[in-house]
Amino acid sequence: MADTNTTDDVGTLGARATGIDAGNDGDADAAGATAGAGVEPAVLINPKTDIAALAELERHLYAHRYAQIGIACYGSSIDPAAAAADRGEAQAILEEEDQALLCSPETGAMLERLSLPHVAELLTPTQAAEVRVLKRDRSRLVDVPGEVQGAFTRLVSESDDVWRRAKAANDWESFEPYLDRVVHQMVDIAGFRDPQRNPYDVWLDDFEHGTDRAFYDAFFAQVKGVVVPLLAEIASKGWQPDRSVIEGKFDEGRQWELARDLMDLEGLDKRTVFLTSTEHPFSDALTTNYGIIAAHVYPEDVISNVFTMLHEGGHALYETGVDPSYDYTVLKGGTSSGIHEAQSRFFENYVGRSRAFAPHLLAAMAKHFRGQLGRVTPNQFYQATNRAEGTPVRVEADELTYPLHILIRYEIEQELFSGEATAADVPTLWKQGYKDYLGVDVVDYAHGCLQDTHWADGLFGYFPTYALGGAYGAQMRHRMIDEGMDFEGLLAQGDLSPISAWLKDRIWKYGRSKDPDELIASACGEPFDARYYTDYLVEKFSALYGL
Amino acid sequence: MADTNTTDDVGTLGARATGIDAGNDGDADAAGATAGAGVEPAVLINPKTDIAALAELERHLYAHRYAQIGIACYGSSIDPAAAAADRGEAQAILEEEDQALLCSPETGAMLERLSLPHVAELLTPTQAAEVRVLKRDRSRLVDVPGEVQGAFTRLVSESDDVWRRAKAANDWESFEPYLDRVVHQMVDIAGFRDPQRNPYDVWLDDFEHGTDRAFYDAFFAQVKGVVVPLLAEIASKGWQPDRSVIEGKFDEGRQWELARDLMDLEGLDKRTVFLTSTEHPFSDALTTNYGIIAAHVYPEDVISNVFTMLHEGGHALYETGVDPSYDYTVLKGGTSSGIHEAQSRFFENYVGRSRAFAPHLLAAMAKHFRGQLGRVTPNQFYQATNRAEGTPVRVEADELTYPLHILIRYEIEQELFSGEATAADVPTLWKQGYKDYLGVDVVDYAHGCLQDTHWADGLFGYFPTYALGGAYGAQMRHRMIDEGMDFEGLLAQGDLSPISAWLKDRIWKYGRSKDPDELIASACGEPFDARYYTDYLVEKFSALYGL
Repeated sequence: MADTNTTDDVGTLGARATGIDAGNDGDADAAGATAGAGVEPAVLINPKTDIAALAELERHLYAHRYAQIGIACYGSSIDPAAAAADRGEAQAILEEEDQALLCSPETGAMLERLSLPHVAELLTPTQAAEVRVLKRDRSRLVDVPGEVQGAFTRLVSESDDVWRRAKAANDWESFEPYLDRVVHQMVDIAGFRDPQRNPYDVWLDDFEHGTDRAFYDAFFAQVKGVVVPLLAEIASKGWQPDRSVIEGKFDEGRQWELARDLMDLEGLDKRTVFLTSTEHPFSDALTTNYGIIAAHVYPEDVISNVFTMLHEGGHALYETGVDPSYDYTVLKGGTSSGIHEAQSRFFENYVGRSRAFAPHLLAAMAKHFRGQLGRVTPNQFYQATNRAEGTPVRVEADELTYPLHILIRYEIEQELFSGEATAADVPTLWKQGYKDYLGVDVVDYAHGCLQDTHWADGLFGYFPTYALGGAYGAQMRHRMIDEGMDFEGLLAQGDLSPISAWLKDRIWKYGRSKDPDELIASACGEPFDARYYTDYLVEKFSALYGL
Repeated sequence: MADTNTTDDVGTLGARATGIDAGNDGDADAAGATAGAGVEPAVLINPKTDIAALAELERHLYAHRYAQIGIACYGSSIDPAAAAADRGEAQAILEEEDQALLCSPETGAMLERLSLPHVAELLTPTQAAEVRVLKRDRSRLVDVPGEVQGAFTRLVSESDDVWRRAKAANDWESFEPYLDRVVHQMVDIAGFRDPQRNPYDVWLDDFEHGTDRAFYDAFFAQVKGVVVPLLAEIASKGWQPDRSVIEGKFDEGRQWELARDLMDLEGLDKRTVFLTSTEHPFSDALTTNYGIIAAHVYPEDVISNVFTMLHEGGHALYETGVDPSYDYTVLKGGTSSGIHEAQSRFFENYVGRSRAFAPHLLAAMAKHFRGQLGRVTPNQFYQATNRAEGTPVRVEADELTYPLHILIRYEIEQELFSGEATAADVPTLWKQGYKDYLGVDVVDYAHGCLQDTHWADGLFGYFPTYALGGAYGAQMRHRMIDEGMDFEGLLAQGDLSPISAWLKDRIWKYGRSKDPDELIASACGEPFDARYYTDYLVEKFSALYGL
């Protein structure tokens, strides 16, 4: 039998196992023939062969991503409880396959050849961007030994589980050792990837390419310098808007109808974006034809529903607004956490928490809850959803104090990574940060340093992108107005389409083909500047509180 | 850089691309060293290496199957409409990967080595079964050229689409050429796989290992010889049970509650079996911890809901009743279409359409529809759900006439494969068959030869397993009674657990480790015999109609 020949690699599953070399055989033979002429083989592979292999690699990464997103999304919402371990095993195997595809020496050689100047000039701009992004994705994985990466994956899986139980039991001690282990392993992994660089900078750059501690230090100094005194001034006024007008019990079925109406109001196309329910809201997309919003409704909090939908809807607009020709390629999806958060916070805050748009949100809500909300005025609604004050929980924070919650985390992350602090110091640092920046007394761990899942999941360096996204969005808003858009007038009319068109044209359509700094500069006509964010906050909250 | 070295296979994605050789390097080296001693390499690979590679191969097949089942199940129920093509592409790529994994020469060589007598004796019985089943799965694919298989996959995808539109428009002509092409390509593929064998036999064996035309000819002759005269006798009586007692409009929400109650009644564990809604009902399982039942409720037909749930529940009981140690291996799941249908039809017919169980189904229904069904008697219900008469549509057929619908299809399939008929003859053959066997005048294509999706999907050879499954089930029921089980008494008590325990112990737990004929012989103590099926039909319907 032709297929029972044995070679040195029998007993392992060899070259044809993924089938991803199918169709290239002809070209590969041609290249082999040329290489036989005595010229350097690295240069003489037919670029067409490599370009075909590039597309083929991306097709497989696409299918795996499709499988992974599908498994994760549905897994979190509808799988039977007993299936958790089996699901995790399937996910881990697919992740291994992805890493193997990207990290194989053949992929590395192919990407290097496609980067050679005389080859690169044969590529379309899209192909060149694909090579650049794939090389970066690959570089994040290829120098980390498999057993180190595997140990980290297992650690954060366990750590997430310990964290869930610790938070429920308000028990810091059980989680504390995991936090140290997560930090140590992240420091080690950063060392494999870039031994010359500060480990925390490696991770900051992962989530927002082009950022580091120097960047964020400057950013947060600027934010802190404005927000802390502004908050003190508000507190000294001794007045707060009445939130009781929007409180009450709201039927869950009708809240889901409201959620669907909010999708229409935000301009989401239900033929391409699918709404489902979950415990922890998120949004994702498989292609531009298939976005997912997973939301949660609480009978006692209809406002959470409204702003969650606007927020996740912003993510979904971004993902489904990418150039459709990037579907099935590595350029599909959002370019960074910060740019993604800029879109979600744009719709949540610059649209949703504006005075001008308040009548439209109120009308959408009153349609389903006439008896409870029929007499609330737009001004009452605007004030109630913009009450600025120090509170202990990040996800419930208002627009003004939100970046201070992030700053507290950013400072602690730096201390943990530098070794100035260990997990044992975190509760004290947390208490001190909340007291200093927000005037809040932390009363327990569950609403204190155990409130977020990020650290348990190994997402150190991720928090800062939340605040940065808000600042990106403010700069985009400023630019729209500066170019002559009647931003407030559009909100007053409830017409978001020119705003979405602007964002699609400047941000969404580029997918991962441009990096964040490049996107901001091209969209806004100048580099990132946090001043637009602080100016916006001062103007909005001074007016609201009559300062 | 170590990973930019070039070899002859640069430009393709090579051996390490799936990562599935990870962890075997040590063993492979050991094997290489042994091979260096000058002995036949095929014999000298360390069996431990091959056994590890076997498990590794199955892990990857598991993850791909998990992804495929998940994508298909959720895809059919909740994906946005625009996502269909993107979903199809992801599925096709994962299918390619599966085929490549299974068909690689390395996999072939590994399976051959593990089949060598002195190696096979080192395997556990489970491992030996894994090798046997994998070799058979592989043999179904490996001799078919990739472009032939690819053309067939694309043809049936297109053909399914054409069929859907043709059925909706009652338009035979548009579908006719596709039917010929599907048959021709299936004949060609069978020729690649086994040129010595009759092509239709190749496909019959695919769906039910060990069967061929001779087997089914004998089976259907036996069935026809009993059912046709029995049906004529019933028709000559001129009496039919009243079906109106179970007709009406039934609220969909309450029908879903009924569906969940029926899961309890059937003994399905909701921690492991998940109920969802879909257009065309099915059941599947990812592992024994994760079964899926996708059902459909019609406001005007609560009976369809009841028997669909019992039927799909039978499939789910089988899949989740397999030995859990087979999870993640190729032995997971049902062994054949016929054995699977035996389980589903067991619960649908031998339990659900029995006189003894009628009070329990009626009570479950009356709980949710007291006003409509509160006064129906068990006897009325039993008679109404067992009305035996010729009707044009297979899926609405009663238990007695059902195998004749299958026989008509089986005869036409044979004529198409032998070349005695082409697609152009099918409408006439169909009319003649329904007239001869069922006394039915076919009035249109949509309720005639366009009613089923199977031929459009390339599933020639599949229909016969439906009738065979019914006959298998009758033999199992006979054996239970023969061994002393008070079958009717248990049904009367509504206690299905001893019946499920019997099926689990004789059938379900074995998964794919035993073939159908072997399972029947071991479960029933003798080879398959259709007499139990015909005896059952005669006894049941003679009593019901007072013949």
